[in-house]
Amino acid sequence: MQDFYAAYDKIVLGDPRETKLDPEEKRRVAVHESGHAVVAHYSPYAEPLQRVTIIPRGMSLGATQQTPSADRHIMTKAELESRLRVLLGGYAAERVVLGDVSSGAENDLKKATEIAFKMVAHFGMSDRVGPVYHEHRMEHPFLGQMLATEGGTSDATVYVIEEETRRILTDSLEGAVHLVAEHRSPLEHLTATLLEQETVEKHELNALLGPSVTLPGALPAEPLHARGP
Amino acid sequence: MQDFYAAYDKIVLGDPRETKLDPEEKRRVAVHESGHAVVAHYSPYAEPLQRVTIIPRGMSLGATQQTPSADRHIMTKAELESRLRVLLGGYAAERVVLGDVSSGAENDLKKATEIAFKMVAHFGMSDRVGPVYHEHRMEHPFLGQMLATEGGTSDATVYVIEEETRRILTDSLEGAVHLVAEHRSPLEHLTATLLEQETVEKHELNALLGPSVTLPGALPAEPLHARGP
Amino acid sequence: MQDFYAAYDKIVLGDPRETKLDPEEKRRVAVHESGHAVVAHYSPYAEPLQRVTIIPRGMSLGATQQTPSADRHIMTKAELESRLRVLLGGYAAERVVLGDVSSGAENDLKKATEIAFKMVAHFGMSDRVGPVYHEHRMEHPFLGQMLATEGGTSDATVYVIEEETRRILTDSLEGAVHLVAEHRSPLEHLTATLLEQETVEKHELNALLGPSVTLPGALPAEPLHARGP
Amino acid sequence: MQDFYAAYDKIVLGDPRETKLDPEEKRRVAVHESGHAVVAHYSPYAEPLQRVTIIPRGMSLGATQQTPSADRHIMTKAELESRLRVLLGGYAAERVVLGDVSSGAENDLKKATEIAFKMVAHFGMSDRVGPVYHEHRMEHPFLGQMLATEGGTSDATVYVIEEETRRILTDSLEGAVHLVAEHRSPLEHLTATLLEQETVEKHELNALLGPSVTLPGALPAEPLHARGP
Amino acid sequence: MQDFYAAYDKIVLGDPRETKLDPEEKRRVAVHESGHAVVAHYSPYAEPLQRVTIIPRGMSLGATQQTPSADRHIMTKAELESRLRVLLGGYAAERVVLGDVSSGAENDLKKATEIAFKMVAHFGMSDRVGPVYHEHRMEHPFLGQMLATEGGTSDATVYVIEEETRRILTDSLEGAVHLVAEHRSPLEHLTATLLEQETVEKHELNALLGPSVTLPGALPAEPLHARGP
Amino acid sequence: MQDFYAAYDKIVLGDPRETKLDPEEKRRVAVHESGHAVVAHYSPYAEPLQRVTIIPRGMSLGATQQTPSADRHIMTKAELESRLRVLLGGYAAERVVLGDVSSGAENDLKKATEIAFKMVAHFGMSDRVGPVYHEHRMEHPFLGQMLATEGGTSDATVYVIEEETRRILTDSLEGAVHLVAEHRSPLEHLTATLLEQETVEKHELNALLGPSVTLPGALPAEPLHARGP
Repeated sequence: MQDFYAAYDKIVLGDPRETKLDPEEKRRVAVHESGHAVVAHYSPYAEPLQRVTIIPRGMSLGATQQTPSADRHIMTKAELESRLRVLLGGYAAERVVLGDVSSGAENDLKKATEIAFKMVAHFGMSDRVGPVYHEHRMEHPFLGQMLATEGGTSDATVYVIEEETRRILTDSLEGAVHLVAEHRSPLEHLTATLLEQETVEKHELNALLGPSVTLPGALPAEPLHARGP
Repeated sequence: MQDFYAAYDKIVLGDPRETKLDPEEKRRVAVHESGHAVVAHYSPYAEPLQRVTIIPRGMSLGATQQTPSADRHIMTKAELESRLRVLLGGYAAERVVLGDVSSGAENDLKKATEIAFKMVAHFGMSDRVGPVYHEHRMEHPFLGQMLATEGGTSDATVYVIEEETRRILTDSLEGAVHLVAEHRSPLEHLTATLLEQETVEKHELNALLGPSVTLPGALPAEPLHARGP
Repeated sequence: MQDFYAAYDKIVLGDPRETKLDPEEKRRVAVHESGHAVVAHYSPYAEPLQRVTIIPRGMSLGATQQTPSADRHIMTKAELESRLRVLLGGYAAERVVLGDVSSGAENDLKKATEIAFKMVAHFGMSDRVGPVYHEHRMEHPFLGQMLATEGGTSDATVYVIEEETRRILTDSLEGAVHLVAEHRSPLEHLTATLLEQETVEKHELNALLGPSVTLPGALPAEPLHARGP
Repeated sequence: MQDFYAAYDKIVLGDPRETKLDPEEKRRVAVHESGHAVVAHYSPYAEPLQRVTIIPRGMSLGATQQTPSADRHIMTKAELESRLRVLLGGYAAERVVLGDVSSGAENDLKKATEIAFKMVAHFGMSDRVGPVYHEHRMEHPFLGQMLATEGGTSDATVYVIEEETRRILTDSLEGAVHLVAEHRSPLEHLTATLLEQETVEKHELNALLGPSVTLPGALPAEPLHARGP
Repeated sequence: MQDFYAAYDKIVLGDPRETKLDPEEKRRVAVHESGHAVVAHYSPYAEPLQRVTIIPRGMSLGATQQTPSADRHIMTKAELESRLRVLLGGYAAERVVLGDVSSGAENDLKKATEIAFKMVAHFGMSDRVGPVYHEHRMEHPFLGQMLATEGGTSDATVYVIEEETRRILTDSLEGAVHLVAEHRSPLEHLTATLLEQETVEKHELNALLGPSVTLPGALPAEPLHARGP
Repeated sequence: MQDFYAAYDKIVLGDPRETKLDPEEKRRVAVHESGHAVVAHYSPYAEPLQRVTIIPRGMSLGATQQTPSADRHIMTKAELESRLRVLLGGYAAERVVLGDVSSGAENDLKKATEIAFKMVAHFGMSDRVGPVYHEHRMEHPFLGQMLATEGGTSDATVYVIEEETRRILTDSLEGAVHLVAEHRSPLEHLTATLLEQETVEKHELNALLGPSVTLPGALPAEPLHARGP
């Protein structure tokens, strides 16, 4: 089974390169990944954890892998909010556990901002912006980043979209900080385990973190069951 | 007759591909299409329903087909408002029936925004903007999306156009939500039927939904009769 | 004489194509063209009517032809205002007679906006903007539409120009609505005649509409006589 | 001598083309040129009149020629203000004498705006803008019109420059209107003469208009004498 | 020695061309150059005068040459302010002595604006802007003028930079006007001498203007001595 | 050992060129470099000093070298703030010791602005901007400077980012000024030594400046130990 994962890792995440972190950095990465894992584990609608690792691969200093979801075609607002919370879980853990944030959250913030932007500007998920599609940014085919499409949106409306994007991300961060603080003890346990053995697999994660949350208290009218393989 | 429609479907909507939705997604698509159908059925000026399906085809996860209208050359303000209401019917149904909206409304919002924008900026249908043509966006010949034409409209005026566009879309959504809530029972009946048999044809739709609305209470001075084949 | 006009029509307006309007659309076109004709007939400074038709040709669903004016080199403010009133006569008639406007006024609004813009930005005809030339838009040599010239005008000044343009167009529309309402009876007579015989020539128009206005009450200090062939 | 001027006209102004103005247009051109001439004649710092004509040439419907000045290297603020007053003299005369302005002032407004813009943005002649050079527009080498240079000036500062430009042009127009109104009788005499003989030469102009102004009341500390050949 | 300077002039300033100024222009140039010279002579931190001339060369109608400074690597705020004062000395003299400014100051204003802009945006010399580098303009490699680099600075911040630039230039002009007014008698003496002999060399300048200022009253904590050859 | 450093200098900093500073400039450079050194020596989280020199090399007039840090992968907020303080140490010393700043700080301001911008816009280190990634600028691959990516950020949000960037830099400068003022005596000692011997090595620096600061009073919850070779 370990062999399978090693192969999977090579293919999906690239060959491990000889990235040499100093001890403080290593500890920070462990805290950061533990944050993602804890928020994913205790969030409704989030996909189940598969493994957590602090072995650097390619550009990544660590990784929290969730069960590869079925090829989803529709994402509800609640599912997207859950994904944002998980993405900001590493940043939240650094702030709560280490008292300071770092440049290591850059990529998480970038991904989370793109999702929150789409919720507001493309999916009609902000009451303030309303059921309006704003052709403002799209992913550039070559550069792999969001660019303005010159759709002619006014600066004032772009600002409203940004304010709503910021509100959604700030709420998501608060949710993540809350979950991290509430489950700090298992989080630190996970961090210590990661520093010892570098990778923690699904069964160990469940043992460390206890029962995960799949049916939240505040369900929509028709609950969507957790997706599985 | 089924054969004919299958052929028609292949030509117009593309070959059905093997899109595999999970059960929750399938239910959401059925609710969404039922929303379009119910709003179309009970809206004045909307074209009569032809069939509703949740069999995915091409990029589309479902479809609500209205009688192909004669090649129209002029659209009145009332007809355009009706079209907007139908476009937002799926979003309205997700909100009312499932308590949550999803990314599945993106394309509807995009089409509706383009229509509302033209009403305001090109057709003189907003008193606030007045009988003025704003050369602000046009469909890009290759990219198939609205782009700024650099017509030099000021940011302040673009914002007024956007506010009017948003007002029209918000009013249309309210209309759609009202119709969906008022006719929730036949809507849920249609959803259940769609989940059972995947496609519902015209005669079944009329049996399920009762008499449609073609002559509204608030007619313009000279009523325009419903168009038929 | 009919032969001559048929030839003239082919050359100037393009071959009649097989555009098939539904009855409601046809009635709307007749009302719209009657609006242009009535406003032209009763406006000072407007060129005399030649014929009105609802036979579609090329992109056009109908046409109101005025006497081809001599090759003018100078247009006064009063003449330009008259032209705007005539251009908005179709939109005014749809609103007054049919209680609703339509997408059919798009091209009229576009032409009227270009004229009003030039009055404000190039001809010094707005006291608020003053005797200043704003190099802001010009007709694009290939695309046939107004484009920003990147003359570097500030957004605030562009907005003032737009407000003045809107004011002029709103005033012109009020003038057109006033004339249409005042002369509604001959207008409806013309509409009915158009629906019967599709085209109405100059002599019939004069019989239907009575004496035209060429010398208005509110003349400038030195009246400019109506231009004729 | 007439031969010489005919040759000069061909070279400088282009061959006379067969431009056929209607009588109202011709009268308007005569009033317009008389306005330029009267303001030039009674303005301090303006170059002496050479001839006035309403024979169309090239794009021009008429012309007021001043003594070709020596190749000037420096223009003072007072000289530039005088030039603006002369440029707006035609527009002023149309308003005062005909009660209405026309599209015929477009080119005058364009030239005057360029001069006023340079006074404000390049020559430090506005106290509000101050002794600052704004790299905002320059003449395009091919298109012969002012274009933004993308010098990065803020919109707020561009607006201040435009307000100052407008103030200078409005003041210049007031000066021109004042001179036209004060000297209306010789102006109308000149207009009538132009309509009779189409061209009025220097000696006739001086006979018609009386002594010109070269030494104004409000001189700068060190008066600059009128330039002559 | 004269020969040497003639050669130097040819190389540095270009061949004298046959620029023919009228007497008023010549007098204005003499006053303008005297202004530069007087401000340079009485300003702390300014480089010592070498010669002043009103013989036109290339694009230049006159020149005030200061001792070629050693190849400087650092300029202090006080030295840059002194350079600005000298650059605006010609404009100041035209205003004080001739009561009117002219287009002849354009190039001085352009150079001064570039220096003041850099003080604010690149050197941290404005407390309001702070110790921030704004990548907003740079000299275009081919066009030889400042262009926006599209560094993405907001319009509001560009405006603050412009306000600070204007403040510095207005203060420098006030300083220049003060020095010109205080030393008007030697300035007029220099102007008269220039009109007589066209060029005034260093020793004559010192005789005409008296002792120069190298150690100002308001020194920084650690005075920087005047630079010499 | 000297030989080794000479080789190191050649490779890393380029060959010393014959840059000839005047005495005032040399003194300013010595003060400037002493400022960097003193702030680095007394700042928590800053990398240990290696040497300080006022021998010009390439574009640089002097250099303060810190121990080459291990290849860092993550920078905390506290470490980045420390780096900013060191970068502004030269500017601070010029202001405190010489009473005047100079153009010599341009490159320091540029680097510091880029770091502060990233803290705010990419790393989520400003509470006012929030956990949002703004795709606004990136380093241009060829030009080596920050350019707008046209990510479509609104002007209002760019301004907020700039205000936060300015706040961080102003705070950093205050910190640097405080350290410079507090340690002025060793700073002047270092300046004098630099002027005598041009370069001061690590052991001399430690002797001159006393014990450095590696464990600050205001530590984050989990202190990060100083990094060393």
